[in-house]
Parts: sequence; C-alpha cells; structure tokens
Amino acid sequence: MMDRPTFTPLDPDYDHRVRASFDAQAAMHTFGISISSLGPGWIDLEFDHQDQFTQQHGFIHAGVVSAALDSACGYAAFSLMTENSAVLTVEYKVNLLRPANAQRYLVSAEVVKPGRTLTVCRATARSADGGEPIAVMTGTLMALVDSGIQH
Amino acid sequence: MMDRPTFTPLDPDYDHRVRASFDAQAAMHTFGISISSLGPGWIDLEFDHQDQFTQQHGFIHAGVVSAALDSACGYAAFSLMTENSAVLTVEYKVNLLRPANAQRYLVSAEVVKPGRTLTVCRATARSADGGEPIAVMTGTLMALVDSGIQH
Amino acid sequence: MMDRPTFTPLDPDYDHRVRASFDAQAAMHTFGISISSLGPGWIDLEFDHQDQFTQQHGFIHAGVVSAALDSACGYAAFSLMTENSAVLTVEYKVNLLRPANAQRYLVSAEVVKPGRTLTVCRATARSADGGEPIAVMTGTLMALVDSGIQH
Amino acid sequence: MMDRPTFTPLDPDYDHRVRASFDAQAAMHTFGISISSLGPGWIDLEFDHQDQFTQQHGFIHAGVVSAALDSACGYAAFSLMTENSAVLTVEYKVNLLRPANAQRYLVSAEVVKPGRTLTVCRATARSADGGEPIAVMTGTLMALVDSGIQH
Repeated sequence: MMDRPTFTPLDPDYDHRVRASFDAQAAMHTFGISISSLGPGWIDLEFDHQDQFTQQHGFIHAGVVSAALDSACGYAAFSLMTENSAVLTVEYKVNLLRPANAQRYLVSAEVVKPGRTLTVCRATARSADGGEPIAVMTGTLMALVDSGIQH
Repeated sequence: MMDRPTFTPLDPDYDHRVRASFDAQAAMHTFGISISSLGPGWIDLEFDHQDQFTQQHGFIHAGVVSAALDSACGYAAFSLMTENSAVLTVEYKVNLLRPANAQRYLVSAEVVKPGRTLTVCRATARSADGGEPIAVMTGTLMALVDSGIQH
Repeated sequence: MMDRPTFTPLDPDYDHRVRASFDAQAAMHTFGISISSLGPGWIDLEFDHQDQFTQQHGFIHAGVVSAALDSACGYAAFSLMTENSAVLTVEYKVNLLRPANAQRYLVSAEVVKPGRTLTVCRATARSADGGEPIAVMTGTLMALVDSGIQH
Repeated sequence: MMDRPTFTPLDPDYDHRVRASFDAQAAMHTFGISISSLGPGWIDLEFDHQDQFTQQHGFIHAGVVSAALDSACGYAAFSLMTENSAVLTVEYKVNLLRPANAQRYLVSAEVVKPGRTLTVCRATARSADGGEPIAVMTGTLMALVDSGIQH
C-alpha cells in the first residue's frame, strides 16, 4: 500500500461532493467501477472484469483501464477543489505495463501537485488482490470555478 | 480531410487481418465503434453517442474517447505489421480539447513512424459531421512477432 | 512542408513580442537555437549540431531536442496570447523517432487548440535539409495574464 | 526520501557500466550534471543552476530539466539491462509543477517496470536542499541488445 498524501481539503464536505459527482457518471455504472475508499487528495476505485469490455486477447481494453484511471485522477483532484468548482481532464498519459487479465481491479490515484487552476495526479491500476502495476497514469485536471457547469 | 500517409504494407492481406482482429474486440462492439475506412498505415473509426458512456456533465467519458483513439492507433499500426504479428499498446497520451458532445464521432489514426518493434501513431477524434478536434492522441504500439498471442 | 494554421492574433504586435521573449532565453543562445520564421500560431526554429550537447552515441541529447521543441510550442502558443500574457509550459510529451544525427535541425510548432488559459501545440524536429521527423512533441501551455511575471 | 526499488541486476558490474556511459555524454558535462548515487534500478543526479541555461523568466529551461530527468530515467533503466545492451529513449512525458528557481537540483529516477525490450521509469526533479517536486517524468526506454551501438 502506498503512503497516502496529506492534504487539507478546502471544502470540508469534499467526501459527499466527490461521491455525488461520481454517481452522476453513467460510464462508471456501466463499467461497474465504484469508490472503495477516498480521502483528501486520493481515491481508490474498484471494478470487476467484464467480458464485454475486452480487447482481442481477452484482456480488459486499455480504454476501460484508462477510464478508471482518469476518473480516479479526476476525483482525487476534485476532492481538493472548492465547493463551487467543476473538474475537467486536460490531458493524461498512460503506460501499459502488464496485461489486464485480473478478475477484479484496484485503481488508486493521488494528487502530486494541487493548484487553483491545474492539479497534477498520478494513478496506478493493479489486480485487487495485490501484485504488480498493470498501468500507470499521469494526468492534468482543471478546476472550472463558478462556471455554471455542474460538478 | 487530412492527407493519408503512403505506406507499403508488408502483408498484402492487411485489410482482412485488421478487420478480423477488430471484430475480436468485444469492447468495440459494446462501445458501438466500427471501422468506416482503412488503408495501409491509417484507419477511420466511427461511433454514436450512448448515454451509458457519459461522464458527470453528459459528455462521452474521456476513457471511451480514449478507447476509440487507442484502437485506431493500434489498428493503423497493425496494418503495417507482418502477418505473424500481434499488436500491443505500450503507452499513449491524450489531450482533451473540447467537450465530447456530438451525436456521432469520427476517430482517425495514422502511423507517424513504423518500425519492426515499435510504431508511433497519431489519432484525432472529432464530430462525424466535421468540426474541430475533440481530442488528440499520440501512442506507441509494439509488434509481438510469433509470440503465440493471437492477433 | 506542412500547411500553416490560420489563426487571427489577438495582439497585432505578436511578432515583435515573440522575438523579444525568445531573445530573453539565455538557453536558446547557448543551444544556438534561433527563429527562422514565425506567424500567428506557428514558428520555425533552427539550430546546428554542437558536440557539447551530445549523448553517449554522439547524437544530440534528447533534452536539447526537447528544449527546442518546447520553446517552439511555447512561442507558437505565445503568438496567439494577449499582450499582457506570460506563457508557461504545463506539460509535454516527446516521442523520439530517429537518431538526432543531422548537421542542422529545423523545429516547427503549431497551435492545435488555442485557449484563454490553456493552449495545446504540436511540434516536429527534423534535419534542416528535409527528411523524416526525428522527434514529435505534444504540449500544453498556460497563459498567465497580468501576473507580474515578465513575458 | 522515497523508498528505493529492490531489483536484482542482470549485470553485477552495472555500477561501472552506468558511470562509463554517463561519462560519455558530453551534454551531461556541459549541463554540469553528475551522478550523486546509484543502485540497481535507480539513480540520483545533481546539478547547479547555470545562467546560460535559463528561460525568459530566469528559471532553468524546461529542456534542461528534461535532459536531467531523461538521463536519470535512461540510466536507472540501463542499470538493469544486460552487459551487451545499449539504451535508447523511446518517449517521455514531463509535468512541470513549480518554477526551476533553485541553486542546486536533485533528480531521482527509478524503474517502475523493467523488461527485456522496454523499461518504464519515473523521475522527479527537486531542489537539492529538499522541498516539493519541480517536475516529474514518466519515460519508456528501450534496450538494444548486441546492436553494435556503443552503450
């Protein structure tokens, strides 16, 4: 287990705010991705293998692993944003290290550098029963403050 | 329309090989992504908006756009590989430029640099009725030759 | 020669502003990098091989190629920013495609997506006498408006 | 101080091999970058601020920080390669987190995933007297075995 970052959230109600926004992502429901744990500046997501999201070798498609990594980065960043912020992904980079051939996955993200406008996060996907990383992401998230865009 | 690259395929039967591998990706069926056109070193994919793949603002989730971009890069690269090769994604980087709020998407990829082991590709996602790019990807693909891994 | 993008600059004096900022980069002088041509949303830089910037195989070090690509992206973006803006690099990604073993290099950048806060650019390095790309970059640049930071 | 990875080197003489290759990089001498510490799968580099490598705000140019990060990634990877291997950078991605305005820098890299052909590394640049990260890199390195290319 990696060390958790120690950030002070700007919004004391960050936990509820993150879960509400996450629940509003239809894609997370479809992928079967759920929050297993979260704190200020970090989050753990989990999901089960689903045959309908495999690529040609029977592994989970890199895009689905990316979707989980991206959501993890987004909500790790979002947890440190102010109450009136929406979060958008600016960019991310994924390195695929090993085949995604597990039965269940744990995707953990943490904030590397919070910022008023831009936040940089890192995330790792691995089998939920431990083992070596399957994929790592570095991503940049943007806070839209009082933009009228829903969280 | 961007210019198509002009590569000579090593496998004259590349078109059939690409389509067969693409059809073996359950994730592409689930996302509703299909091949609209392909040639040596390039491919066009298309897919419709589906509510089940949206994020919290109602746009298509970045992970799904990435899945399409990644598959496009992978098959653009695969089209130039030898008959006995399998293709794996090494890494990719996505910049999200505009909200994915179209009804139908066109995702075009082309090989920037083919190689015996590594191939670099670029891909762009946009609304299928034209307009500005929604997201761009640069990715590195790896050929596994006679690996026993299915194409 | 790639097509040039067609942007309308917000600052009619962008050419002078870009050149003044570029001249203030000591690193560009040290690397021998100079502007050969520029317009709204694009720039061409050139530099000669220097033995003092080689890696262990005698090629130009990837960091120096990156410095040129990064400056090219930065100034392509800066040309579209307002008069009171400073430009900072948020992130970039480089794919190294071929050895940097030329006598002289041409590094061309163009804006893919301009923005009030963030601008995305692409750049390519190649031998100045033509030939295939040596390296490609995608980068994100940020405008700091009225920040007190010098341009 | 981050935990060091625990890898078993394939070449017991890796320390000498890494230092010999590093010394052959003219660019490292020019940038004043030297090895402060190394082990199997990790390396620490250090260098002093030099005015000749600044950008327009007086900070060290991102390209020079990248050169140090890239070399760190390259030699962390190289330390785990076989005796008859040369190392080439395939690609890297840098996020610039804070201004490079220190007097001396510490750049630390470690292998995330070693491989026979491809190795993935992460690196961090910070002020040598501690403090928060200035830049982080994720990079992919390639082993060329018995290629005739010097190490």
